[in-house]
Amino acid sequence: MDRLTIIKVGGKVVEDSQSLDALLNQFTRISGQKILVHGGGRTATEIAGKLGIPTEMVDGRRITGESMLDVVTMVYGGLVNKKIVAQLQARGCNALGLTGADLNLISAKKRPVKDIDYGFVGDINDVNSRELRIIINENVVPVIAPLTHDCKGRLLNTNADTIAAELASELAAYFNVYLFYCFENKGVLRNPDDENSIIFELDAPMFQQYKQEGIIHSGMIPKLDNGFRAKRNGVKEVLITNPENVATGKGTRII
Amino acid sequence: MDRLTIIKVGGKVVEDSQSLDALLNQFTRISGQKILVHGGGRTATEIAGKLGIPTEMVDGRRITGESMLDVVTMVYGGLVNKKIVAQLQARGCNALGLTGADLNLISAKKRPVKDIDYGFVGDINDVNSRELRIIINENVVPVIAPLTHDCKGRLLNTNADTIAAELASELAAYFNVYLFYCFENKGVLRNPDDENSIIFELDAPMFQQYKQEGIIHSGMIPKLDNGFRAKRNGVKEVLITNPENVATGKGTRII
Repeated sequence: MDRLTIIKVGGKVVEDSQSLDALLNQFTRISGQKILVHGGGRTATEIAGKLGIPTEMVDGRRITGESMLDVVTMVYGGLVNKKIVAQLQARGCNALGLTGADLNLISAKKRPVKDIDYGFVGDINDVNSRELRIIINENVVPVIAPLTHDCKGRLLNTNADTIAAELASELAAYFNVYLFYCFENKGVLRNPDDENSIIFELDAPMFQQYKQEGIIHSGMIPKLDNGFRAKRNGVKEVLITNPENVATGKGTRII
Repeated sequence: MDRLTIIKVGGKVVEDSQSLDALLNQFTRISGQKILVHGGGRTATEIAGKLGIPTEMVDGRRITGESMLDVVTMVYGGLVNKKIVAQLQARGCNALGLTGADLNLISAKKRPVKDIDYGFVGDINDVNSRELRIIINENVVPVIAPLTHDCKGRLLNTNADTIAAELASELAAYFNVYLFYCFENKGVLRNPDDENSIIFELDAPMFQQYKQEGIIHSGMIPKLDNGFRAKRNGVKEVLITNPENVATGKGTRII
């Protein structure tokens, strides 16, 4: 099977033009088939603010009302996605920007209201990779925005880490998939004040223990949950690292 | 050669949810391969206004400064395009939203400044249909936003009528292309106050004469220039009509 690298980058990296440049230079160097999954939350918050739409977050997740859905559709699917596509094309990388609605790639259902009404947030039902695999085999590089659809004409806001994990899991049947979660640190840190205190290998019992000890907490927990699920689903390697180490393979490896 | 229908619809049609519904119902019924090219100017003007960015038009063309480029990227490439894609998916039509940067589909150069500085407006250099044809042959339906790129990382705002004509011309070598320009009237009218005064057939000398007599004027002139160019480039049929007549083939036929 061919190697396929899936890189997920957070908003912080893609929304600053300097760090985006550095990321795209690294990304272009990766040999073989590849996919970029991106966020864009900071720009969404900024544009929403300018439009007079308040941003409300619960546990790091955006409450997505009707007008916020329009904002994330514009910002994730349009502004952030198409800028990345144009800049990859400038580097000779034949990028194709996608949401989960395009090619019916990722269908989802609106999250049921329990304690909190997240609004138009989607929990993934299914990944359809048929057309995606055809274009990947034509050396096209998909660039994926964190939006899905409900098959009834509605776009839904969906977490980019989850999209990357589900896509990696689906594609593991066809490729040797390497999944990289890129964020600001070199890996999962034992001590948040020491950026060299990287946990190089992480297995499920260690993850439980670090959670209990409070060493791994807040936003890192769902990210790692996604990573462990992808690993269980046959993804060859899951690495948490920063954009600079995408090429070296240094960081926290899920085992 | 297979039949390929290219429908270009203006902003007025796609920005109103009722007329968009009607259009997509008609569009879904077209048999064979198809492409939808859309505008979105009214929404761009509205969002720009809310963001405090003034809209300036010269001869119906938008002056596109840096911040207006962000707006059209968001609105054309994101909001309008992805809503259409999601609603086509709901109708069982496997849509794929594209700009000219995606798949390196349409490259352009920034319009040189003469009397007027249009800003980041692109004049088309080249259409690359290789990957587009592969996906069309997989029964995917491209939905194309009026944006191109300069191959140097910059998106450019490009007229949707021109995009439709250039795409139709390029694809005429591979398909029997039928190009429909849809707008609010049933065709080009002899008398603007009588919507039944349709000019059913229009050839180049008639076009010259109607222009001289002032019967055809303003925005209709560049639209028809695009239509005549497409026809000269081997497009099988070019029709100016409204969305309701996409299926019947009634309207103004360029001969």
